[in-house]
Amino acid sequence: MAEPDFPESEFAQRTERAQAAMRQAGLDALFFTTEADVRYFSGFRTLFWQSPTRPWFLVVPKSGKPVAVIPQIGAHLMSATWLDDIRTFSAPHPVDDGIALLAGLLEDYPRIGMPMGRESSLRMPLEDFWSLRERLPGAEFVNATGLVQALRQVKSELELDKLRAICRIGSDGFAAAPALFREGQTLKDAFRAFRIELLEKGADDVPYLVGGAGPGGYGDVISPPTDQLLRAGDVLMLDTGATKDGYFCDFDRNFAIGFAGETVKRAHETLVAAVNAAAEIARPGRTCADLYRAMAATIGQGEGDVGRLGHGLGMQLTEAPSLTGFDDTVLKERMVLTLEPGIDLGEGRMMVHEENIVIRDGSPEFLSTPAAPEIPVIAP
Amino acid sequence: MAEPDFPESEFAQRTERAQAAMRQAGLDALFFTTEADVRYFSGFRTLFWQSPTRPWFLVVPKSGKPVAVIPQIGAHLMSATWLDDIRTFSAPHPVDDGIALLAGLLEDYPRIGMPMGRESSLRMPLEDFWSLRERLPGAEFVNATGLVQALRQVKSELELDKLRAICRIGSDGFAAAPALFREGQTLKDAFRAFRIELLEKGADDVPYLVGGAGPGGYGDVISPPTDQLLRAGDVLMLDTGATKDGYFCDFDRNFAIGFAGETVKRAHETLVAAVNAAAEIARPGRTCADLYRAMAATIGQGEGDVGRLGHGLGMQLTEAPSLTGFDDTVLKERMVLTLEPGIDLGEGRMMVHEENIVIRDGSPEFLSTPAAPEIPVIAP
Repeated sequence: MAEPDFPESEFAQRTERAQAAMRQAGLDALFFTTEADVRYFSGFRTLFWQSPTRPWFLVVPKSGKPVAVIPQIGAHLMSATWLDDIRTFSAPHPVDDGIALLAGLLEDYPRIGMPMGRESSLRMPLEDFWSLRERLPGAEFVNATGLVQALRQVKSELELDKLRAICRIGSDGFAAAPALFREGQTLKDAFRAFRIELLEKGADDVPYLVGGAGPGGYGDVISPPTDQLLRAGDVLMLDTGATKDGYFCDFDRNFAIGFAGETVKRAHETLVAAVNAAAEIARPGRTCADLYRAMAATIGQGEGDVGRLGHGLGMQLTEAPSLTGFDDTVLKERMVLTLEPGIDLGEGRMMVHEENIVIRDGSPEFLSTPAAPEIPVIAP
Repeated sequence: MAEPDFPESEFAQRTERAQAAMRQAGLDALFFTTEADVRYFSGFRTLFWQSPTRPWFLVVPKSGKPVAVIPQIGAHLMSATWLDDIRTFSAPHPVDDGIALLAGLLEDYPRIGMPMGRESSLRMPLEDFWSLRERLPGAEFVNATGLVQALRQVKSELELDKLRAICRIGSDGFAAAPALFREGQTLKDAFRAFRIELLEKGADDVPYLVGGAGPGGYGDVISPPTDQLLRAGDVLMLDTGATKDGYFCDFDRNFAIGFAGETVKRAHETLVAAVNAAAEIARPGRTCADLYRAMAATIGQGEGDVGRLGHGLGMQLTEAPSLTGFDDTVLKERMVLTLEPGIDLGEGRMMVHEENIVIRDGSPEFLSTPAAPEIPVIAP
């Protein structure tokens, strides 16, 4: 039987915070369909979400524990969570993948909140959602994206322990770089070696590992690795989202292969200075836009192609809020953020840098071991 | 620059097949929001989909190449695909994450198909989808789930090469089991060792690895590993979906730790016999329900908690069709299926077994190296 990632009190507190916010918003229930939202309130963690076949539903009522409406195949694992009310259906089903069960549960709730806004998706067939709405003619479905994001972006100390653990594994992995990367190696081999290093150091999984390499910078920051050979003068960047107990790290590191040119050295120093400029003012009461402007002023440009200079972090690789000039989210204690400035070096080359921090009452706590201003060189 | 997974002719053929089906269905365009559908028609492959922040859109018009409407951060990688028309927006954006661009593109198409049925989801905010529909008052959005599934479930020979490669890696990984698993090991360590073995053998990633262990069987088949120790008499099962070049294997293997009891031996033989019973009749013209019934007759029960006894396989861990008694999908050459019978052993214990096959004009091709009837024993 699976061991819960947290004690029951953690889920009870999350639910109580949600119910307090629901009272303020006049909501009778919250309705969830995605992995992170279902897990946040139930503790249900499985890679089975990789299969798109079956929908999974969780309802947080205005009082009492959340109620799961799930395929029978998940009943055993869900019974290990703190939930008491687990309603199951055979899935895939010839005509009804849980919609009648769901309608029966939701008919008591006239005003139902669900994520419908920025960063959300609907992990169930649209036709089934329409069918659900038709079965609930008296129900109003309203956007609860902001409500849920406001809850999830402030972490508990137990969540911070999880995040600290996986960020430590990420930092230890990058510290092993001199033994992992070398001139003449393919990018595929470099990435494979790093992925294995993270697993050996205790990561459960590495769902995200992208990056690039090139002379004096790289072309983009979301590519899978190729058979391109690392050459002297290349800057190699790996950006990783590894997980442990369902929590992500998300930061990157740059390495100069053989030697670093002056432009690369200066760019790396500037990126680290930009992170520090944001970290220096990162306090409860400041805004995401404040951090954005501190970084933008240091790198001397806007958010460029990436669209932002950092974001929230937790059960997902990226979460709300966004460090943009238009995000006025006020920072609170125990928010976890990535600081992620980038520099356009021209001729299709760029460099990025990223750290993970916790907002504290005072200086932020770095979850990633901060990079030094000097770009590390992988000696031949 | 990323190397395309396939030559341009592969994507041109996929698009032509789609456009032929669209003419029959009276559709002017197909509209996609999910990773697999976008990648199927464009070749755009990145782990960046892990971030829920940005939506990505692809439109397949009734003639001509697909058109991408994507965040600026993906422009460089998308430009390496066969697409010519790539429209980008800055994302996250204060007010419009691509909806105006999308409406401008779709306004020429009165009848737009999109996946809305079984196994589908909507990877964009519901509010943005509603806004899109409001901007296109003359457009009708219709369910194209069946059309798209019918295309994707018949693989090209180039896709089969990808699937053969990752299934070979999976088989080689399981062949190394005697060196990886041992009595006294935690499940977490066993799973970690197997994940690393798959990477060392050439897998790009292992997005899915679940399983269980217990005396004479296990309790469920979707759990993450725990600190439970493997003991003599346990049956250990690992079920893996590893990937290479964006294609999945999906099969499992059982191992007896130290020794196997008679019940476990007989159960394993029955599971292998059930797979063979399905494989013997798996030919073009037979149906999914035929394969289901052949397995169900051998194991002497229905689909139980799992809901089905196999499914399609390809760019996703599970794809249409489903091997259930109600799925009358007619098998065609080059469909790829998992055969996945299970046996309930009572007292909360079960055993499952899975192989991956290609429907051929004659006997099916096994992509996984078929398991022998005798359950392998991990000797002390």
